[in-house]
Amino acid sequence: MIRPRLKNIAVIGLGSSVPTPKEGIEAELIVVRSFHDLDQLHNDDVKGKIVLFDQDYTNYGETVIYRVEGASKAARKGAVATLIRSITPFSLYTTHTGSQNYEEGVVKIPVGAITIEDTLLLRRLFDRGEKIILKIIMQSSYDTKISRNTIIDLKGVLYPEKYVIVSGHIDSWDVGEGAIDDGGGMFISWLVPVALKNLKVKSKRTLRSILWTAEEPGLIGAAAYLERHIQELDNITFIMESDEGTFNPRGLDVAGSKRARCIIAEVLKLFPPMDNMTESDAPGSDITLFIKKGIPGASLLNDNDKYFWYHHSQADTLNVQKKKDVIKCAAFWAAVSYVISDLSEDIPRD
Amino acid sequence: MIRPRLKNIAVIGLGSSVPTPKEGIEAELIVVRSFHDLDQLHNDDVKGKIVLFDQDYTNYGETVIYRVEGASKAARKGAVATLIRSITPFSLYTTHTGSQNYEEGVVKIPVGAITIEDTLLLRRLFDRGEKIILKIIMQSSYDTKISRNTIIDLKGVLYPEKYVIVSGHIDSWDVGEGAIDDGGGMFISWLVPVALKNLKVKSKRTLRSILWTAEEPGLIGAAAYLERHIQELDNITFIMESDEGTFNPRGLDVAGSKRARCIIAEVLKLFPPMDNMTESDAPGSDITLFIKKGIPGASLLNDNDKYFWYHHSQADTLNVQKKKDVIKCAAFWAAVSYVISDLSEDIPRD
Repeated sequence: MIRPRLKNIAVIGLGSSVPTPKEGIEAELIVVRSFHDLDQLHNDDVKGKIVLFDQDYTNYGETVIYRVEGASKAARKGAVATLIRSITPFSLYTTHTGSQNYEEGVVKIPVGAITIEDTLLLRRLFDRGEKIILKIIMQSSYDTKISRNTIIDLKGVLYPEKYVIVSGHIDSWDVGEGAIDDGGGMFISWLVPVALKNLKVKSKRTLRSILWTAEEPGLIGAAAYLERHIQELDNITFIMESDEGTFNPRGLDVAGSKRARCIIAEVLKLFPPMDNMTESDAPGSDITLFIKKGIPGASLLNDNDKYFWYHHSQADTLNVQKKKDVIKCAAFWAAVSYVISDLSEDIPRD
Repeated sequence: MIRPRLKNIAVIGLGSSVPTPKEGIEAELIVVRSFHDLDQLHNDDVKGKIVLFDQDYTNYGETVIYRVEGASKAARKGAVATLIRSITPFSLYTTHTGSQNYEEGVVKIPVGAITIEDTLLLRRLFDRGEKIILKIIMQSSYDTKISRNTIIDLKGVLYPEKYVIVSGHIDSWDVGEGAIDDGGGMFISWLVPVALKNLKVKSKRTLRSILWTAEEPGLIGAAAYLERHIQELDNITFIMESDEGTFNPRGLDVAGSKRARCIIAEVLKLFPPMDNMTESDAPGSDITLFIKKGIPGASLLNDNDKYFWYHHSQADTLNVQKKKDVIKCAAFWAAVSYVISDLSEDIPRD
């Protein structure tokens, strides 16, 4: 901040943001609370300015649109750069990154996330009528490399061509260690075939563990798998994902027909107190691509009410993972997927 | 970290630390859990190395000794620099500073605090037997300037020469905004004479609000006041301090004789649910100097179980202060100090 006083402001670039020019962007700041507030402004009031979105955090799904769409919306009104309040319910001066998308046809402007603390400071100054000048210096480059999904199969003894898939994603953002997003989910999914093999347990159907690559930039590994295996979708009887934490496990969030959910509910009765079932039409992240194709599936329910305190920040490190909880998640994940892959009938699609 | 892999590690210098040489200090790291563990090591094992204290956080009083004494203890064993795990029960990759003291006669070595996350990473590497090489680059300078206590009196109508003191400290560390340490305590203490004057309320004794200067480097303002006013100590009938948060207020932590505490307990009965009284021989920070001289006093009890999440960190900002809570603290602080200053008898010392 150059005006009304000098202050360093921590900023973290969002994924796919263009850089600022080397000398930075120095411009006046306007602070808005919502896309609606932005729409109310004349383009002349936005042109040449930096827009800061100070959206309230309600839940991740509702709030993350400011991260994903903020830059494009601001650019359409003539802004030269965008900042968002980090997408988190709680902060200790913590910046949170994540992906964002430039809409077709908009000028690509730099976009970064600042802390809740600095957002509220800037809002107070703005509400007080102060003219705020920021200078933003951000570097970034965007390039793609080849990466691959990692697949481990424990062959089924009766129907080896049929699959129950357990999954997590193997990529993470460069801040923190990616321990919760998605180290935990990746670990417990990797462990399913490994542990069952060690236990010399086999099921009727093949248990396939998939560690999706490039989830963070937008489900790229999952989309590639779907495309390559499009002819085999009928053979996937159930697909599971853990990408929302491996805190104390509580059950499954299930998509599928009424009959499918009924069967999963019965299976869950084997696992009290991890027998909670919630229903969603799009559980998980990568697996939503498969759910949309009519494949029943589920994501791991767990006591993850603090998940977004750490998500996409420097605080996503191994010490957030509690050994006892992860072991419980791993045991539940292996056991429940084993039972589903060993059922006498396939999980029905209708 | 240079070895076993390159990693940036966030570090914040402790108050009064000497800097590293310009080119930094590059040395092997050893990780210990306690002063006891350090004592068990041969000096040859410590000489030339960097010592990281990975003490568990129990409570502030017990844990802060690693911040205050860590560098001296390590220097006595021949260490070239010291790092401590930040003194906090919870972290989102947060560094916490604070003062430290070099003992007489030890080599002054640089000392800084790193995050819990990096501490645990380094401990895992160390426990695994990895040789860890760190390069620490820290700048610092130490200088003193004149600063002053700020004093506001609301003169007593019957005994203007007798004082009830309410206080907080006006200095803060340079990280964050000092909003909780001690903006809140300073604010509610400043408000006592101001609010009562506005209400045209006067008490028998003088209500003196003191905003202590230079608490953080070691109660310097309070010590100067004590020295200058040493002849008037008999006139201080009660001394109060708020330096542990202005979250929802709950009552007072009281030092004094049994009779003194009895009277304060009676006064508190006017303020349910803020009528909790705990007993301590050294409540508060600055006022401990006066308590030691036999003056009865109290510090503010409040729902501050998260106080040390923010303390001495970038996260100590205005948004931690909740308006409703601060107003309740201010009202309680003004009312309870008014009642004490208007009692028919002085708070007894014996």
